[in-house]
Amino acid sequence: MKIGILGYGNLGKGVEAAVMAAPDMELVGVFSRRDPSKVKTESGVKAYAAADLETMQDAIDVLIICGGSATDLPEMTPKYAALYNVIDSFDTHARIPEHFGNVDAAAKKAGKIGIISCGWDPGMFSLNRLYADSVLPGGKAYTFWGRGVSQGHSDAIRRIEGVLDARQYTIPVPAAVERVRNGENPELTTREKHTRECFVVVEEGADKARIENEIKTMPNYFSDYDTTVHFISMEELQRDHAGLPHGGSVIYTGSTKTASGEKKHVIEYSLKLDSNPEFTGSVLTAYARAAYRLNKAGESGAKTVFDIAPAQLSPLSGDEIRAHFL
Amino acid sequence: MKIGILGYGNLGKGVEAAVMAAPDMELVGVFSRRDPSKVKTESGVKAYAAADLETMQDAIDVLIICGGSATDLPEMTPKYAALYNVIDSFDTHARIPEHFGNVDAAAKKAGKIGIISCGWDPGMFSLNRLYADSVLPGGKAYTFWGRGVSQGHSDAIRRIEGVLDARQYTIPVPAAVERVRNGENPELTTREKHTRECFVVVEEGADKARIENEIKTMPNYFSDYDTTVHFISMEELQRDHAGLPHGGSVIYTGSTKTASGEKKHVIEYSLKLDSNPEFTGSVLTAYARAAYRLNKAGESGAKTVFDIAPAQLSPLSGDEIRAHFL
Repeated sequence: MKIGILGYGNLGKGVEAAVMAAPDMELVGVFSRRDPSKVKTESGVKAYAAADLETMQDAIDVLIICGGSATDLPEMTPKYAALYNVIDSFDTHARIPEHFGNVDAAAKKAGKIGIISCGWDPGMFSLNRLYADSVLPGGKAYTFWGRGVSQGHSDAIRRIEGVLDARQYTIPVPAAVERVRNGENPELTTREKHTRECFVVVEEGADKARIENEIKTMPNYFSDYDTTVHFISMEELQRDHAGLPHGGSVIYTGSTKTASGEKKHVIEYSLKLDSNPEFTGSVLTAYARAAYRLNKAGESGAKTVFDIAPAQLSPLSGDEIRAHFL
Repeated sequence: MKIGILGYGNLGKGVEAAVMAAPDMELVGVFSRRDPSKVKTESGVKAYAAADLETMQDAIDVLIICGGSATDLPEMTPKYAALYNVIDSFDTHARIPEHFGNVDAAAKKAGKIGIISCGWDPGMFSLNRLYADSVLPGGKAYTFWGRGVSQGHSDAIRRIEGVLDARQYTIPVPAAVERVRNGENPELTTREKHTRECFVVVEEGADKARIENEIKTMPNYFSDYDTTVHFISMEELQRDHAGLPHGGSVIYTGSTKTASGEKKHVIEYSLKLDSNPEFTGSVLTAYARAAYRLNKAGESGAKTVFDIAPAQLSPLSGDEIRAHFL
């Protein structure tokens, strides 16, 4: 199957690596809003202008859209679902119904598949919440994120006056994770679940006390958390915080009841990722395979990870999958 | 949907509890090869003779078959797939292709669905092996079982002369689990992955040294493992080892490669179950819902967990699932 990538930041590069490693995919090109002559791809595949997508329907089976959820994807995914099978990693939870509806309408009209909100959360974590709740209805799902870099929180710090660069780590509170794992079913506040640790590079002579206070009191981002701020040099930031690791866990506690009493069960799914965008890109690529196959089978419209049978993600045959994984 | 249960041991009782707890299911009856007048069900639902299944097609939408993999299921599942949508927990790995083929032929001919090898391993563990391999192809999957009671190993001890009762726990070796979690990708022998701990009640005056030796040297079951044997009283066995807890984990280590180097990723799925048969019964019940829906949608033939979209397992609508779990 022939794959196009729209958007060539960290996520686009992660998708590129996954597509190059797939035995059954061919990467057609990377599409960017930047001047394509200035985009040098890691694989050497050709860079195109995004505008070229208007006329390349015959060359591309699935377009993997690597844009931001705030403004890019709400516009891009429905637009390109009218031309291609598409897939995105839309993660603005409150707007998913609206986004699903827009992509569904465009994709159905075009006879294409549009998979939205794919990655690890939403994505693999969502799958695990649903599987667990389906098997043990009425239980409780806890999601912990980290230790990992939150790009949104890092960006928020960078917008503070006097800040040159910053990296923010989201960290689960170990005692909270343990209580959940032990089946205590605790009610946990935002503050009890995660802490935030910030590494900040400031301008020469900047007022560190003001900056630290602005971070710690920032509504939505930091004010509900216990936050630690470290001021470090640009050299330290580049040396020690260049990666984008992330991860976390979904822990589900449920029970069954028979004449012999109530029995507790704990289901835990966890990820420890050296690179958030490379793993997310790998998930998108596996689901791109499913988008292609579903469309070949005559399906159309918006889908999520919930609507797709696991076998659709693998390049292997049904016999091979049963032999290796069942 | 109307559910029947064939076989009323520990697993059948686990299914019964899950069906009674499901908002969209009605339990029609329990079917047994025993004299039904001697079967008292926990829910009070009627017990039938297995022979009654020959004529109850109009009363039952899905028959959940709770038999043993050695001799019951290879015969029962194809037989009843000719009459009903069926589901089983067949777990003899080497015979899955043959069983799949037999169920597929019978179910296709009857226009029914036959889901095989459902539970947690095979089942939820299989799903996690496949999802991980699809997202990070070429990685390595490790499966650890326990700490939990292996009924097959407990039965093997009971067959030794002089043994009155026994309970065998399978235990993962913590150091091996840690090495895998740390991404070391070790090659592990059978002995390095699990140990076996046995609690054995013997007849008055039995030769304990002989029994211990017979256990530890038993081929296939114990000879490849480090095994500990404890002789205890019947009272202790009944007091401390009445439950059937189990669990384990699938740990998958894979990597991605870009111009910036190789990045490692660890995916872990683990279960800690107070009751193996009640959890397994809950998985079977969720997949029974999928069997019913797939058949209503016109599908037929043998399926495994790999072929079934997660949304099919939940009683909730697509909108509700996206709102709660995505």
